[in-house]
Amino acid sequence: MSLAAALFAPRAVALVGASGDAKKNTARPQRFLVKHGYAGSVLPINPTRAEVLGLKAYRSVAEAPQPIDHAFIMIPEVEQAIEDCGRCGVPVASIFSDGFADVGAEGAARQARLVARARALGVRLLGPNSMGVIDIPGRLALTVNAVLEMDAPPAGGISMVSQSGTMLGTVLSRGAARGLGFCKLVSVGNEADLGVGELVELLADDPQTRVILLFLETVRDAARLAEAARRAHAAGKPVVAYKLGRSALGERLARSHTGALAGSDAALDAYFRDCGILRVDLLETLFEIAPLVEGRTPPRLASAGRAPRVAVVTTTGGGAASVVDRLGLHGIETVAPGRDAPIIDLTMAATTDQYAQVLGALLASPECDAVLAVVGSSAMFHPQLAVEPILRARRAAKPLAAFLTPHAEQSLALLAKAGVAAFRTPEACADAFRAYFAWREPRVRSAEVEFDWEIQKQKFDEKSALDLFGRFGIVVAESQVARAPAFGHSLPYPVAAKILSADVAHKTEAGGVSLGIADAKEFLEKSRLLSRLGDTILVQTMERGLTEAIVGYRDDSLVGPLVLVGAGGVLAELYRDTVVRLAPVSVEEAEAMIGEVKGLAVIRGYRGLPRGDVRALAETVAALSRLALVRGRPIAEAEINPVIVKREGAVAVDGLVVLKE
Amino acid sequence: MSLAAALFAPRAVALVGASGDAKKNTARPQRFLVKHGYAGSVLPINPTRAEVLGLKAYRSVAEAPQPIDHAFIMIPEVEQAIEDCGRCGVPVASIFSDGFADVGAEGAARQARLVARARALGVRLLGPNSMGVIDIPGRLALTVNAVLEMDAPPAGGISMVSQSGTMLGTVLSRGAARGLGFCKLVSVGNEADLGVGELVELLADDPQTRVILLFLETVRDAARLAEAARRAHAAGKPVVAYKLGRSALGERLARSHTGALAGSDAALDAYFRDCGILRVDLLETLFEIAPLVEGRTPPRLASAGRAPRVAVVTTTGGGAASVVDRLGLHGIETVAPGRDAPIIDLTMAATTDQYAQVLGALLASPECDAVLAVVGSSAMFHPQLAVEPILRARRAAKPLAAFLTPHAEQSLALLAKAGVAAFRTPEACADAFRAYFAWREPRVRSAEVEFDWEIQKQKFDEKSALDLFGRFGIVVAESQVARAPAFGHSLPYPVAAKILSADVAHKTEAGGVSLGIADAKEFLEKSRLLSRLGDTILVQTMERGLTEAIVGYRDDSLVGPLVLVGAGGVLAELYRDTVVRLAPVSVEEAEAMIGEVKGLAVIRGYRGLPRGDVRALAETVAALSRLALVRGRPIAEAEINPVIVKREGAVAVDGLVVLKE
Repeated sequence: MSLAAALFAPRAVALVGASGDAKKNTARPQRFLVKHGYAGSVLPINPTRAEVLGLKAYRSVAEAPQPIDHAFIMIPEVEQAIEDCGRCGVPVASIFSDGFADVGAEGAARQARLVARARALGVRLLGPNSMGVIDIPGRLALTVNAVLEMDAPPAGGISMVSQSGTMLGTVLSRGAARGLGFCKLVSVGNEADLGVGELVELLADDPQTRVILLFLETVRDAARLAEAARRAHAAGKPVVAYKLGRSALGERLARSHTGALAGSDAALDAYFRDCGILRVDLLETLFEIAPLVEGRTPPRLASAGRAPRVAVVTTTGGGAASVVDRLGLHGIETVAPGRDAPIIDLTMAATTDQYAQVLGALLASPECDAVLAVVGSSAMFHPQLAVEPILRARRAAKPLAAFLTPHAEQSLALLAKAGVAAFRTPEACADAFRAYFAWREPRVRSAEVEFDWEIQKQKFDEKSALDLFGRFGIVVAESQVARAPAFGHSLPYPVAAKILSADVAHKTEAGGVSLGIADAKEFLEKSRLLSRLGDTILVQTMERGLTEAIVGYRDDSLVGPLVLVGAGGVLAELYRDTVVRLAPVSVEEAEAMIGEVKGLAVIRGYRGLPRGDVRALAETVAALSRLALVRGRPIAEAEINPVIVKREGAVAVDGLVVLKE
Repeated sequence: MSLAAALFAPRAVALVGASGDAKKNTARPQRFLVKHGYAGSVLPINPTRAEVLGLKAYRSVAEAPQPIDHAFIMIPEVEQAIEDCGRCGVPVASIFSDGFADVGAEGAARQARLVARARALGVRLLGPNSMGVIDIPGRLALTVNAVLEMDAPPAGGISMVSQSGTMLGTVLSRGAARGLGFCKLVSVGNEADLGVGELVELLADDPQTRVILLFLETVRDAARLAEAARRAHAAGKPVVAYKLGRSALGERLARSHTGALAGSDAALDAYFRDCGILRVDLLETLFEIAPLVEGRTPPRLASAGRAPRVAVVTTTGGGAASVVDRLGLHGIETVAPGRDAPIIDLTMAATTDQYAQVLGALLASPECDAVLAVVGSSAMFHPQLAVEPILRARRAAKPLAAFLTPHAEQSLALLAKAGVAAFRTPEACADAFRAYFAWREPRVRSAEVEFDWEIQKQKFDEKSALDLFGRFGIVVAESQVARAPAFGHSLPYPVAAKILSADVAHKTEAGGVSLGIADAKEFLEKSRLLSRLGDTILVQTMERGLTEAIVGYRDDSLVGPLVLVGAGGVLAELYRDTVVRLAPVSVEEAEAMIGEVKGLAVIRGYRGLPRGDVRALAETVAALSRLALVRGRPIAEAEINPVIVKREGAVAVDGLVVLKE
């Protein structure tokens, strides 16, 4: 029996710790399985009762009279239950019990022991601290989630993996009330064994799943999830993520030198983009977007480089304006092909035929990338009539969505049933279009080989950092080391002098940098001053250019190697004006990144300012990003701050490399 | 009879153009008045029928057998109808008919004539292009808005003025479905006569209205609305606004010199803040926030200068996290007084008493500024039980709100009925807290008198602009005018030389500025070069400081005089890092503005950089803002770019003044 079958379509389930008190949480799985018409066998396991809520109970899994495909464990003695499962050949156990990694270091150790033992026994684990598994079409409600108190939620193609059990209930209850059809829903709990990545793999292979939603608090298995997302993409199944922790992680934006590179949230953004995962900003967008992307691939805009265009048809000016305004905030244009006005305002007098004809023409028009129908109060009182022309529109290459301005549950349900994306709020509607237009194919990793050389486990000072960058093809400022007391060197003036020490982290703040030294006399003077901080001085030719940029690399603990480019200087740092991608990137990708840095507009021809060598900067970014290819990835962080960008060329003048512990 | 009574409580209404076809829009007012139990007389006016939908009809208002307090006009011949109203002493006419300012210049002229005539006749007008007036407690449904097809919406204290008729229906239908009680709702249409400001005045004086909501597309009567908002504040009635056009207006962010000062949306933000109007970002927040602010005044945080704090109590970790995350994005902290965790997670085992006790303690605690209860799936299946402890909490000085994670209409309605703010989405919940904490008392205008001197209607060049600033107490760089061919002056070197001409707008781009001139020889050289652009040169002492700032003034066409401060330089311009307030401002207010400019962190001690004279910069901002007090307000725009901020003092080195046309 496959893992997927055992998880989602077990022939028999054991409910370990099933309660005979129908009001208790631990009675829920049994009640829900019965209520929703599960066709397999339900075996309550309870050492103190012969019968639980009308079903014969067994003292342990071992005593069950038939093979168990899936055990649901609700007792504190999880270890014993897993032993039993192992002995009886139960392939999967979902663990509701908590007290593992969710309660600190001791619990984490307990969890590690549990996983090791389960592996040895051949039992796969979901959880601990999981609310279980639901398969709507399969009528499997193996869960303690109270949301299953509801009567038969609609079956459909939307599956979901959630790191929060209750939010799984939130999405199911709200989506079902809306008439959206769900398929498989999994609460992963602590992800001790089965993680989000592996579950997405199973859903990518699941013939009934058509869209995969993720509710994430963190990412525990970035590489596997990335692979799974590619597999889902190959299977034509969009993956949509809502990720918590934007602000909390934002706080972590470290103040230290390289830590300030990028917040982890920017890293996750880069990661989702790289994997071809759509990321939504608002909670309700997570399920409202499903029909918009189902069966679709990332958009290829008619003309690359321009803003995406949505044609808006409406019978209410104010309602349309509330979405158009929000789309504009996301950089999405509103168009009305063949009309003067920005939106297509059909009076209430338009017939269903006329309305449908307008929609058909727009869906066929090359002048827009998507179509939005805004429906006014008729949606409330004449639900069928109001959405009739939208339901008639034939599925086209570009998406069609609806926003309903009044309280209009029935209209929303009619649209959902017909597979048309329908939105309750202008903000979720605009958020869905934003996510859709930002959606990219999963990036194809180039077949670049690992670098075939080792990096010494040394402490890098600025000189050795710049030397390393040079080996990666980065142009670095000419430099020499000068030592007390003579401080001899042979570089032409003007020069810069910096204290050379791997132990002085913030050289400028420490007074360890002297720029624009005009001649040998001044140099000796300055060097003597600097030598209070150390004997060795790095002398560099002074480089001047049009602007300064910062280029960084970080091997993120969640998502792996990242590369960053931003405008240089203290202002850019204050504005956090940086763009992050998963490393490595090609020169072309690096050029696209540079194009997104606001402050680097100064070298892209802003206000008639002289243009800088963007290509050379991009080559620097791409080169630094190749640190991700060094065998064993020994480098934790690297930074060039600044890179001097000139009319021709770009030169690294300050470098930092930090190895992993 | 007062205007308010005629508008909201007429004893008899005439429906001019009432249709006998119940399906037509023009039949709606009559149907709705009857349906909702209007107690006054309804008189259909229709020259072709003796009877309309069961009521005796009259050929004209003049033929009506009793005095009419309010006429609702639905015919194209609006002018004739108004003549009739005037002749018969009808005090108010609401005009649904369009074809006025809504259709361009010709219509606008028609509208101006109509208003003039109505004034002469003593008839006040609502509209044209208005969907009418609704008074829920008064059972007046004098409107064509289809939302009144609904059965008796709950009566309450929420009133609304809307520039979009359909969005008025949207808010009423969504709010009513939620159990929120409404009072008076007005669709203002073109605001030819009765505007938003005057209506807010009426609502401020209305004993039944407790909160006033505004749906705005623009602001047509800023001064009157500001006064009305103060009146509402004095009457203890919060005013909440949702304003469209953020992105469209954003686009208008002019590229020209002073136009780039601030987008009109920033101006409106400053205006709302100044008036003590709460501004919400999300559509549903507009009505969901009403119970949160009803009966309250702007918050006084226990310790000024710190982030606002919300205590979050929850039975669902994921649900709470979705709000906490969003609050964090708005700079609002989550606290759990007396606990280690950031939120207060009550297990489902907590009794109603225990839960209520926790809420009571938090509402009394000095450690938080507001309390949020997050309710999980129990809200769906046991609505009364789930919200019971929240309903039991006694109204306190700080607000209490609830966020319900599942689809839970009944729980929402129970909370609404009890006057507790309840939110459907984490985003609207966080938006409401953001708006609440940003809420300020209406600013008390200082009693400063107008300046008693005239400004010549001249074209200002940089010299005369700086001279003007000097008269307002701004420290300006010492300067002299030098003329070809000798370019004589007596300033000490180094100096700056700039072409002096009111016709060269972008001097730097035009090559009309030369900085850091070291001596007389270089000065003559540079002056000769500059003189290709003009004969007259402004010589200035070179000023050096810690950073540059920009200070601007604009008499905005919507909201009046504004003052702006921002970081100087091209990067700050790219990042639009500016703060705007209504002018004039005091030095203390200017200091607070400077504190909000990110880029000026460099003179506030960021990273150990030397501190600049923030007070001197604030004095410059306050001084420039007093241009708002010049009699007749002849100045359209003024700008100091840059102000050089030093360790001690701040000096204006470049000035621009543009008079109104």
